[in-house]
Amino acid sequence: MIDAISLGHWFDVFSLISPSLLPQPLASAGGFENNEHLVIGTLLISAIAIFITSKIGEEVCVWMKLPPILGQLAGGIVVGISGLHILVFPETGESSTSHFLIDILQVFTGASFEAVTVAYTDQLKAVSEGVANLGIVALLFFIGLESDLKELVRVGSQAAIVAVFGVILPFTFGTLGLIALFGIPMIPAVFAGAALTSTSIGITAKVLQDLGHLKSKEGQIIIGAAVLDDILGIIILAVIISLIQIGTVKVTDIVSLILSASVFVGGAIAFSKYLGLAFVAVADKLKTDSGLLVTAIIVVLLFAGIANALGLEAILGAFAAGIILGETSKKEELLQQFQPIVNVISPVFFVAIGAKTDLSILNPFDSANWKGLAIAGFLIVVAILGKVATGYLLTGSTPLNRLVIGVGMIPRGEVGLVFAGLGAGLDAISDSLTAAVILMVVATTFLAPWLLQSVLQRMPEKYQKLV
Amino acid sequence: MIDAISLGHWFDVFSLISPSLLPQPLASAGGFENNEHLVIGTLLISAIAIFITSKIGEEVCVWMKLPPILGQLAGGIVVGISGLHILVFPETGESSTSHFLIDILQVFTGASFEAVTVAYTDQLKAVSEGVANLGIVALLFFIGLESDLKELVRVGSQAAIVAVFGVILPFTFGTLGLIALFGIPMIPAVFAGAALTSTSIGITAKVLQDLGHLKSKEGQIIIGAAVLDDILGIIILAVIISLIQIGTVKVTDIVSLILSASVFVGGAIAFSKYLGLAFVAVADKLKTDSGLLVTAIIVVLLFAGIANALGLEAILGAFAAGIILGETSKKEELLQQFQPIVNVISPVFFVAIGAKTDLSILNPFDSANWKGLAIAGFLIVVAILGKVATGYLLTGSTPLNRLVIGVGMIPRGEVGLVFAGLGAGLDAISDSLTAAVILMVVATTFLAPWLLQSVLQRMPEKYQKLV
Repeated sequence: MIDAISLGHWFDVFSLISPSLLPQPLASAGGFENNEHLVIGTLLISAIAIFITSKIGEEVCVWMKLPPILGQLAGGIVVGISGLHILVFPETGESSTSHFLIDILQVFTGASFEAVTVAYTDQLKAVSEGVANLGIVALLFFIGLESDLKELVRVGSQAAIVAVFGVILPFTFGTLGLIALFGIPMIPAVFAGAALTSTSIGITAKVLQDLGHLKSKEGQIIIGAAVLDDILGIIILAVIISLIQIGTVKVTDIVSLILSASVFVGGAIAFSKYLGLAFVAVADKLKTDSGLLVTAIIVVLLFAGIANALGLEAILGAFAAGIILGETSKKEELLQQFQPIVNVISPVFFVAIGAKTDLSILNPFDSANWKGLAIAGFLIVVAILGKVATGYLLTGSTPLNRLVIGVGMIPRGEVGLVFAGLGAGLDAISDSLTAAVILMVVATTFLAPWLLQSVLQRMPEKYQKLV
Repeated sequence: MIDAISLGHWFDVFSLISPSLLPQPLASAGGFENNEHLVIGTLLISAIAIFITSKIGEEVCVWMKLPPILGQLAGGIVVGISGLHILVFPETGESSTSHFLIDILQVFTGASFEAVTVAYTDQLKAVSEGVANLGIVALLFFIGLESDLKELVRVGSQAAIVAVFGVILPFTFGTLGLIALFGIPMIPAVFAGAALTSTSIGITAKVLQDLGHLKSKEGQIIIGAAVLDDILGIIILAVIISLIQIGTVKVTDIVSLILSASVFVGGAIAFSKYLGLAFVAVADKLKTDSGLLVTAIIVVLLFAGIANALGLEAILGAFAAGIILGETSKKEELLQQFQPIVNVISPVFFVAIGAKTDLSILNPFDSANWKGLAIAGFLIVVAILGKVATGYLLTGSTPLNRLVIGVGMIPRGEVGLVFAGLGAGLDAISDSLTAAVILMVVATTFLAPWLLQSVLQRMPEKYQKLV
């Protein structure tokens, strides 16, 4: 940590040398609380803190052969309310304490501790709200853009079985278990159950590739199922958030929301060929450099707006737009152009989730937390068993290693964290449940590669020849 | 324009068919003003309006062989307070009136006219403030990244003469003229004088290339001078904004600001080799995909923060960071990765400038506006003559077409519009002066290609052989 006193001392020496040449804002230190320089300074310093945290976390994770997104999350936890208290988002209800960034801001702006903490908190809030609205739309569009419907179609019914039951089993057992075993109310139970549904394919694909199994029948089923899994998970997410906003759970609401969300996404997929062709035709007509990018942005915003107007979630529209544009000939170019934009948004989003997570409420040395810990443990067990079981639901004469398929579906990732991040902003979801969901995502992501490796290495001869 | 009544009618028919299946927010129309769906809906619709406006404007300009940025500006003027009143930013002091976007929002959210206009205005404000803070930092970084110091060094002293006098002449005559002829107070006069300084090279480079003169001695001097010109213009901009924030003009303030801004940018350029090497070393060490991009973002934010802490403008730091990183081996990769980000920010920034411009205060049929028009005319004349004169200040034995050089420096662009955009947010700068600056930018950009073409075509034989 930088010592504020020695910094201040250095600054005093500097101002003694040439006081009249010092730029005004520095020279008038102390007299201008809450001005432009303070606001911009706090904005810049909080953005720097977020990006440095994210990058260090990512690098550590890559070095440990873990997915970078986990590093963004873990970095956020380290600097957030569970750790150093450097990034304290106002939504968490905690107030900022003194730390070296506040010290630096005080020295350079000359504002009081109170003025600096207020400005700092305001800017963190502005950053997280900005990302929470338009940033998440961009993120879900990108997830949609990356999905490959062709992978899904190729493996067909077997992938569909794995995906559908891989959503139904963890969702049902998770939700019912939370209600029956822990007495959790309906809405948060449904929310946490839904957070169990979506598989993150990145880490599984990497392990399969490293061991030469990516092109195996099992590998192809896993990849295909994960695509459908994401679609189902995001529909469920959209439905749940709408239900939470309505505040009560009525069967007609659930039916209407599930129907309209499914019709919306299904319709987008069904017409994706024509919508995609229309998009390409317009984008190709434009003569300006940013023609493709801006047309895509307009399509995303339009679909998000339509979903919103229909009473669905904007992110569902963005995701549907991503699937449609991902089926066009422009997919690669769009991925390339949106990647830098997502690379700016994603650290802010996932570091913020980590920073807002209060792990102290899961501290095992306080008996008040034991219920929360039991819930986290329960979610982890359901998350693993719910996916492993799906492999054994596959029938057919082809010899398949059903365990590999189930284990390959274990890791949760982006979509699970999006659930946690959105849940953190909702009153209906308690902090301890959000923390339990995050622990579940982290645990499955850590465990999956080890489990998958040991299962693959003990794979009997009859499956290996199919590789 | 879409007819709100027929849309509403269609919607009524829809809800009659299946009222119980309608998603909740639609079904409860009228009962939930200012809720999540309304906020997100207005945010999405204002973003769509901005991007569509920008794209249409750009396409029209490219078709007319004009720079796209002019299209973003003109598009903004068409939809803003001077035109259709679709994008009315709250800073302009005008209130929103009914238009088809408001109608659409009313139909789909069921909120009242008042609730919709309040939400719509709030979101426009959020969008423009977000871009005004971090967006402009990204924009200035990109301008710095694009500058090529090597071009400047290559043509050396002749470019420096053209650049320095091309800044001094319009600035001095502009500022003094506004004070002496029009009785404008010191600060706004200095502001408008400064807006006259910076050349936009894009359009000149294109005309020179089309006519095969880009590699001529004249072409090289223009390009080199424009680089230095931008650096000087941005230093002046930073100094002026600080002066305006201080509120009074003292000689010691001016001297200290100019000195510190020059030392800051000069220091960045002087140490750019070492700073650049350090940057490349760090970026190359990172194993994650977004390593280069995020490291660059941290550098930009850090330089912006340092400039801010020193009492300078954050944009000056961002620009200096751009120059430094533009000298590294990563320049091309950085340009490619930041281009999509700038392509998102730039429409918002320049459409907003256009939309906020009240051209009605320059309506020639109202005698109250004649002074403003006279000021605009004066600025245009000084903008042209101030640059044309610089060509004739060149000495040396090489035959040079001095008129071509002067005319090539005429177009103002991004930096001039950044001045206008920042001026619009300052109380010290009147709306009519902002409008006059914008007219000056538009006029010089429209006139320059025609003037340059006719000058080049009448170029005598002795110069042409040098091409």
